Amino acid sequence: MGLGAAGAGTLLMRPAFASPAAGPAEGEGVGFAVVGLGLLSQGQILPGFHSAKRAKLTALVSGHPDKATRLAAKYGVARDAIYTYENYDRIVDDPRIQVVYIVLPNAMHAEFTIRALKAGKHVLCEKPMATSVADAEAMIAAAKAADRKLMIAYRCHYEPLNLAAMRLIRSGKLGKPRMVVTQMGRQASLSDPADVWRLDMKMSGGGALADMGIYGINGARYLLNEEPVEVRAWAQTDRKDPRFREVEDLIAWQFRFPSGAIANGSTSFDYAPTMSYQVECTQGRLVADPGAFYNGNRLTVQTGYQSQVQAIHEIDQFAREMDWMADVVRGKAPLVSTGEEGLQDMRLMKAILDSVAQGGATVSTAFGYTRAVDPAKVVDVPA
Amino acid sequence: MGLGAAGAGTLLMRPAFASPAAGPAEGEGVGFAVVGLGLLSQGQILPGFHSAKRAKLTALVSGHPDKATRLAAKYGVARDAIYTYENYDRIVDDPRIQVVYIVLPNAMHAEFTIRALKAGKHVLCEKPMATSVADAEAMIAAAKAADRKLMIAYRCHYEPLNLAAMRLIRSGKLGKPRMVVTQMGRQASLSDPADVWRLDMKMSGGGALADMGIYGINGARYLLNEEPVEVRAWAQTDRKDPRFREVEDLIAWQFRFPSGAIANGSTSFDYAPTMSYQVECTQGRLVADPGAFYNGNRLTVQTGYQSQVQAIHEIDQFAREMDWMADVVRGKAPLVSTGEEGLQDMRLMKAILDSVAQGGATVSTAFGYTRAVDPAKVVDVPA
Repeated sequence: MGLGAAGAGTLLMRPAFASPAAGPAEGEGVGFAVVGLGLLSQGQILPGFHSAKRAKLTALVSGHPDKATRLAAKYGVARDAIYTYENYDRIVDDPRIQVVYIVLPNAMHAEFTIRALKAGKHVLCEKPMATSVADAEAMIAAAKAADRKLMIAYRCHYEPLNLAAMRLIRSGKLGKPRMVVTQMGRQASLSDPADVWRLDMKMSGGGALADMGIYGINGARYLLNEEPVEVRAWAQTDRKDPRFREVEDLIAWQFRFPSGAIANGSTSFDYAPTMSYQVECTQGRLVADPGAFYNGNRLTVQTGYQSQVQAIHEIDQFAREMDWMADVVRGKAPLVSTGEEGLQDMRLMKAILDSVAQGGATVSTAFGYTRAVDPAKVVDVPA
Repeated sequence: MGLGAAGAGTLLMRPAFASPAAGPAEGEGVGFAVVGLGLLSQGQILPGFHSAKRAKLTALVSGHPDKATRLAAKYGVARDAIYTYENYDRIVDDPRIQVVYIVLPNAMHAEFTIRALKAGKHVLCEKPMATSVADAEAMIAAAKAADRKLMIAYRCHYEPLNLAAMRLIRSGKLGKPRMVVTQMGRQASLSDPADVWRLDMKMSGGGALADMGIYGINGARYLLNEEPVEVRAWAQTDRKDPRFREVEDLIAWQFRFPSGAIANGSTSFDYAPTMSYQVECTQGRLVADPGAFYNGNRLTVQTGYQSQVQAIHEIDQFAREMDWMADVVRGKAPLVSTGEEGLQDMRLMKAILDSVAQGGATVSTAFGYTRAVDPAKVVDVPA
């Protein structure tokens, strides 16, 4: 993407967070170990280090030695920086690793996050952060006990289109938001190894809801910058479809917000690819369609009867969030997508599945969580 | 729109309905009386006769003699073809009138429809057809008793974008539809006379739901070509807003369909103008945004990750539905948007309001209605 060598670029950042760092000197880079070398790692995360400016790939952790060796060669990782799931705890003695990025199946997040924290490393963990509220709470407790950072990889919190959408809503130019509608889904396939575990309830924690729907749950919250107090959900799942023996397929939920807004969301592993949302406000509306693909996203803003596609600076979203994590570690950026932020989504996903299990009953979600840091207020986008 | 003089154009129509007419000879035109001369009549319907080919404006019915006289002069209606609400029943003796188009506040639809039918006239009635299920049933019974046609003015049933959307879904090219999402709303104002009655529960039958939400209710049904078996709805209404002392403001509902699809709809009189929908299917998706404005509608179809805006032939939607009604009367077209079709929406709106009143309870909507005529199968679009 032509962003120059690591550390050479300019990060637009608010003065409050531009104070001198306690971490590595400018340009040195923060070492990352990537744990789990599936499709997401191979397709997005490892290539993302090419565009990253401060996050530096220094180690790999995998259950497949051949794959790890091949990828280490491809990405310039030292042979002795390849770890297995068994000898993973030895990272404690590896000064090349400051951050561990957890890209494993969801059910393994808690264990590998806690082991990394115990080894004194900071953790960037893919979402959903776990497969249960209890695991998520244990991860947060482990980070506190170890005095290390735990960031959940909500890439949309650092991405220009979504930041533009949040800021436009916060600005009041569209009036008051009343309705958020999110559609998040794709076709999952049992013949795709990356989907086999996502169709397993124990490994995924919730099928499409955990894989795709979470973008809509989190999206409604960051678009409105408030938390829902009630949720209810219906599912439509064909149990004869071998993909959906354990997990729900289509789930459509409703969130009620204290401000007077409602969010209607849906997710399915039987959709053509969609990650779209729209926000209906009193004086205007915005449509992000697609709004959370890796690239090619499009934001349309309508005021009155006029609509206009916004110019959005497209970035490597994975490089961006890894650089943000590097800056958190260096003391140059606040932790935005915290463990508590991830825990809130875990609670909301559980509430949605509880509602489905109870035939669509209304479930209270007044958990008392308030986001500590509004991404719209602190995250700037690389020039 | 350059469609030529009345009766001179070519209507593409399937052979089954191209049989010789029992009605007036080709080119003669079918006479319409418009009842109610508010903003919709003045802004859309009366001007629509300029583009109509077989529907001909021949009479006006109004409670405001000055307005009626002015509009009669403007649109070439004879002075002695102006009726008041009091002498309205005299249309029985006026051979210039074959169809009465009811454009009154919703609560007046039943009375003026039934009086027209009793006078031996066919009726085209704006939607919602009434303010209660009982009134809708009485209108249908009156049409049967009089052996006259009753058509509800669902302009989207006759409009190219919506027909293209229906046909694309019926074709199977997008796979199976799983989710329909509809947003229908605008800002209503107590300082606008056209909105004052729409914010009155007795006159409107349901505020935004009756005025705008009905497009989403009917839309979900014609897009999926099936009927919901369950509905539930939440409202968020600020009773301190003087607009919403009687009617609900924001309503968000869910319909469950037997095929395995769900529809999430919302409506509000506190939205910036929006009439949009999207359909998530297993092999593709479509987005109509806007999908039901009088003009400027836009249909985007996505298959895989590629999306494309469809070329849609824009027409005068009011001319189109009036011409269709004229063809129904002439025996040249089937009745598509029947009274029963309108009654089904009345039942569904009642179910939504019942659900809101019961705090969001699930309400059965298994009314046993099946659409007699699928617009996608019979309605063609003028060249």
